[in-house]
Amino acid sequence: MKSVSLYDTTLRDGTQGEGFQLSMLDKLRIAQRLDAFGVDYIEGGWPGSNPKDIEFFQEAAKLDLKHARLAAFGSTRRANVAVEDDGQVKLLLEANTPVVTIFGKSWELQVTEVLRTTVEENQAMIRDTCRHLKEHGREVVYDAEHFFDGFKDSPEHALATLQAAADGGADCVVLCDTNGGTLPSEVMQICMQVKERIPDTPFGIHTHNDCELGVANAIAAVKAGGAQIQGTINGYGERTGNCNLTSVIPILQLKMGIEVVPNLEGLQSLSHFVDDISNNPHFARAPFVGRTAFAHKGGMHVNAVQKLARSYEHIEPGKVGNSQQILVSELSGQSNILIKAEQLGVPLEKGSDEAKAILARVKELENEGYSFEAAGGSLELLILRQLERYEKPFELKEFHTSYRLYRDGHQPVCEATVKIFVGDEAEYIVDEGHGVVNALDRALRKALIRFYPEIEEVSLLDYKVRIVDGHDATAAKTRVLVVSGDGESSWGTVGVSENVIEASWIAIVDGIDLFLQRKRRAGQA
Amino acid sequence: MKSVSLYDTTLRDGTQGEGFQLSMLDKLRIAQRLDAFGVDYIEGGWPGSNPKDIEFFQEAAKLDLKHARLAAFGSTRRANVAVEDDGQVKLLLEANTPVVTIFGKSWELQVTEVLRTTVEENQAMIRDTCRHLKEHGREVVYDAEHFFDGFKDSPEHALATLQAAADGGADCVVLCDTNGGTLPSEVMQICMQVKERIPDTPFGIHTHNDCELGVANAIAAVKAGGAQIQGTINGYGERTGNCNLTSVIPILQLKMGIEVVPNLEGLQSLSHFVDDISNNPHFARAPFVGRTAFAHKGGMHVNAVQKLARSYEHIEPGKVGNSQQILVSELSGQSNILIKAEQLGVPLEKGSDEAKAILARVKELENEGYSFEAAGGSLELLILRQLERYEKPFELKEFHTSYRLYRDGHQPVCEATVKIFVGDEAEYIVDEGHGVVNALDRALRKALIRFYPEIEEVSLLDYKVRIVDGHDATAAKTRVLVVSGDGESSWGTVGVSENVIEASWIAIVDGIDLFLQRKRRAGQA
Repeated sequence: MKSVSLYDTTLRDGTQGEGFQLSMLDKLRIAQRLDAFGVDYIEGGWPGSNPKDIEFFQEAAKLDLKHARLAAFGSTRRANVAVEDDGQVKLLLEANTPVVTIFGKSWELQVTEVLRTTVEENQAMIRDTCRHLKEHGREVVYDAEHFFDGFKDSPEHALATLQAAADGGADCVVLCDTNGGTLPSEVMQICMQVKERIPDTPFGIHTHNDCELGVANAIAAVKAGGAQIQGTINGYGERTGNCNLTSVIPILQLKMGIEVVPNLEGLQSLSHFVDDISNNPHFARAPFVGRTAFAHKGGMHVNAVQKLARSYEHIEPGKVGNSQQILVSELSGQSNILIKAEQLGVPLEKGSDEAKAILARVKELENEGYSFEAAGGSLELLILRQLERYEKPFELKEFHTSYRLYRDGHQPVCEATVKIFVGDEAEYIVDEGHGVVNALDRALRKALIRFYPEIEEVSLLDYKVRIVDGHDATAAKTRVLVVSGDGESSWGTVGVSENVIEASWIAIVDGIDLFLQRKRRAGQA
Repeated sequence: MKSVSLYDTTLRDGTQGEGFQLSMLDKLRIAQRLDAFGVDYIEGGWPGSNPKDIEFFQEAAKLDLKHARLAAFGSTRRANVAVEDDGQVKLLLEANTPVVTIFGKSWELQVTEVLRTTVEENQAMIRDTCRHLKEHGREVVYDAEHFFDGFKDSPEHALATLQAAADGGADCVVLCDTNGGTLPSEVMQICMQVKERIPDTPFGIHTHNDCELGVANAIAAVKAGGAQIQGTINGYGERTGNCNLTSVIPILQLKMGIEVVPNLEGLQSLSHFVDDISNNPHFARAPFVGRTAFAHKGGMHVNAVQKLARSYEHIEPGKVGNSQQILVSELSGQSNILIKAEQLGVPLEKGSDEAKAILARVKELENEGYSFEAAGGSLELLILRQLERYEKPFELKEFHTSYRLYRDGHQPVCEATVKIFVGDEAEYIVDEGHGVVNALDRALRKALIRFYPEIEEVSLLDYKVRIVDGHDATAAKTRVLVVSGDGESSWGTVGVSENVIEASWIAIVDGIDLFLQRKRRAGQA
């Protein structure tokens, strides 16, 4: 038996977050991944508040989960209604899950002002509902809403609600920092009092991130003897989100010696899976799993990391499925490039002419305003070009863009022409778009597709523009960063020029070029 | 004297973060905002590692900061070199700042493996450098790199390095969790030992967010008697970022009763300003300042919030300049606009029709992708236009831009035509430039100059482009931020459109328009 269990509520509390919506299929897929990863409880939804959640539990019953137990979420019976007659409690039983989690009010203020009933009736609601669910063979988790705020107002009232749940037979009482306003020192102190007062029922913790302390508060509760952590993958949830399990899990396992999952290496992949399923961008700076979580930029740091990885890495990145990233920047020396080349499968020797030539070219481009930090694709092309393992897929002859804005009702008119050669064959194509860059991108693809039909797979995922040195204003250099993808992977490319159109052109062309180079190399291999 | 001072390193450690680059003008503007907000120390850069930072300190000296003290950052002298002869230490003094912060090694492993010198020489390097800087009249902050890792390996060695700094006269020793791998319970315990061992020198804390505990660790240090918190706005910084001051400040002030700034209401605006200046998107779920930090989605929550805001809000959102998102009350968000109008000398009455109309227009534009945080000039024009105290200086009839790139040696050809009316007089002008936006800016000025010769004084100081929603790539909306100046003051204006040329046009026109409006109002006054 684990000393701390993981209770995931991504599918329920997570979906309270803005921009985090899941279809039933999404929820089923996430549930399977959570199970495979080793989460103990999966809260699937609230049958009483959402008819879709009833369907979910019907489908989820067929999933054949290996380890995790499904939980249906709901509230205690209403005031002044027998628990057997409460429709919402009936739906909880009909969800037919091994676990039922109910929440009740632990803050006296909430009982009188929001629920508008008496303290005694509130306790009876908690006790009756727990007992009723236990009588129907469920494992019962009691979520004490607003527990910490309630405790700070009136410890006696708050503890009495937990006692009511324990008397009703709850298997675990969970202390909720519903508003996310409690500090770790308070959590620790209050948890210790709970443990003393209600020693025979394990307690859990449910925190929110409103003070950027969601993870710290969960850890504090575990330190005080907590036996269950509720949270979500990537911290999705209402307002600022729930306790981020993606950070809590490695902390427990790697820092506190509490084994909660059989294998941490799937952590980054699980995190990205949930982002992708919910169509949210990855947060680059996310602890443990973010793209830059083990990225080193300063030349001094890079140097030290090579001498001794522990210098700037608190854990070995591979333990959570992540990897060290060396950012090639103005602050860096040759070591960054050697590592990058190694990752590409084209190892360079330190101090070799090739390595020197590549570094010189990188520095030269950086002086022109290039930055390869988020444009590994352009760096890959630069290395390939320098190594003469590169064949140019097409030759640009000329392009032209035109944009005309009328103030008399007309839509703006925007078009691009592209003239290219592939070998000896010329193509001269015009297309239009929402803006000059969009028009140019469309014209280029239209011109290339008959030579390289595979570029159909590539699309532009992101497009960012910045001015490299603002001093000369519009005459200054523009840096365009493009992210392209083919459904399986994505890559960044960069272009710099005195004007945004040419910079965009360079980045877009490199994005397509790299795709074609990789296809060719894969075909040769 | 404050019991805890705020030390901001957004301009130095922040810029170690991926995608967080600042020009010198950006750095100067941020420094002014930090000063106005009430931050105590502003670490501006590392003169020894970056020639741009030397220039920064020259310019920053002219800023006339009201409260904050500027700090130059660097390292101790090198091993086996007299401190007077160390070039990097010389550059620190030449930066001519009231404060100098130096870092040294507190982890024995780092001394032997990375620095490759002896423990004794390392302590001498720390002591000598502190003493030398004190002799030159500087306030000296000593950053003990890897302090917690070092302490865990060898408490005696780690404490001896702090003692060396104290012996050298350091005004504050700062315990750095350089790798971000330490837990709050460890921070608390170690800080208490530091306080006991080195009672006469105040200690500070510098944390990183690698375990999502950057804020919690800083708070733990303050609980243990810490007197300074180092961090960055929005938590920018290497890897997962630094301690997020944007969360720490309201926690100290609202939760712990430690006053650190005179007025918290500018917090959200400061946070968004730094995002906009660095051309980064706002993180919606950011505690305190995020767009969804006080957003209520669950129907039950909305209901409860209406009955009792404290139900799901740990603080009053207005205290940090944020607002509740569901209950868009007629009065919400108005205060910023009232303050701005007051500053313009056109005071509005709270709740008046004029104030409501202006607020409605701001919300409408924000929905279209506008952001006024770094574009006070556009907000000023919006208010003037709504108040009907506005005379349009010219009427656009049409503009056209053309860009042609040849690969056969030719320079790209880029021109713009502008057709405008001033009163009944038409002007139809063509000009060329480095890019389409530059050409357009030149053509517009050329067209206006015979009507408004004073625009000779105005120039474009900065030009930034970002894509408001990256999902549709080049077809998404573009936001252009322009900073114009007349040598005495500078002002920001913003334009949004599906294409960068029109967005630029809007922002450039507003920049000139505002200048003309101000001239006219000054002439009338």
